[in-house]
Amino acid sequence: MSIKDLADCHLDHVAIVVEDLEKACKIYEDMGIHFLPEREVVEDQGVKTAFAPVDDRANIELLEPYGEDGPIHQYLAKKGPGIHHLCFRVKDVKAKGEELSAKGYRLLYPEPKIGAHNCLVNFIHPKSTGGVLIEISQKGEH
Amino acid sequence: MSIKDLADCHLDHVAIVVEDLEKACKIYEDMGIHFLPEREVVEDQGVKTAFAPVDDRANIELLEPYGEDGPIHQYLAKKGPGIHHLCFRVKDVKAKGEELSAKGYRLLYPEPKIGAHNCLVNFIHPKSTGGVLIEISQKGEH
Repeated sequence: MSIKDLADCHLDHVAIVVEDLEKACKIYEDMGIHFLPEREVVEDQGVKTAFAPVDDRANIELLEPYGEDGPIHQYLAKKGPGIHHLCFRVKDVKAKGEELSAKGYRLLYPEPKIGAHNCLVNFIHPKSTGGVLIEISQKGEH
Repeated sequence: MSIKDLADCHLDHVAIVVEDLEKACKIYEDMGIHFLPEREVVEDQGVKTAFAPVDDRANIELLEPYGEDGPIHQYLAKKGPGIHHLCFRVKDVKAKGEELSAKGYRLLYPEPKIGAHNCLVNFIHPKSTGGVLIEISQKGEH
């Protein structure tokens, strides 16, 4: 089976919390991957981000805490740097969230919010996914 | 920049440690991704694995402890289920390992070993990558 048959979902990014964005970019560049030159601040989430394409549509997203406080500041202080979440691209994040909620999955937001790249996103709590924070994201055309 | 320009490296898989392989497959199927029917036991690593394609070449790899003991048994007992490592596909794992070692990265094995799908693999210790265990893997044509 190929991913081309799986029209409903693909990996959009793996998000990694880092202490220093530019130092972390250098480490992944040493592995052989290359970051886009843009850096994006998502004020609402308290993060500065860098993206690197690592497959046809999948990216590595590095997250450095930005501003006074936020969930990523707290994550870094408590757990240290590391992989934070996986994000799957879906066609309709609201419908997918409602479907998952009806199946008993615990969503972080009652309604989707705007994330990086103007995407509409929600998160599924790791307690209901077997230990992994999962983001679902819809392309920013809303 | 597209991943097509980045010939030296792409994401091969995101590995997730789980308590129960079939239950975990069901959770990711609910997200919208689909697992290949095969299950592979890697005796040397003490794991049973399931793969799901999530992009052109990237996969989710679920790892359930298998057999008496091994690093994944210990990881699960100590940290619980969660994302375990990222794997990047490289052309020559031995050469890449030597290059990274010369730059000061700490490799887990002095020489590459055989991993799942008959790939030749090595790992870079999370202490030298900013908190993420990174596997480098060469396609199984050796």
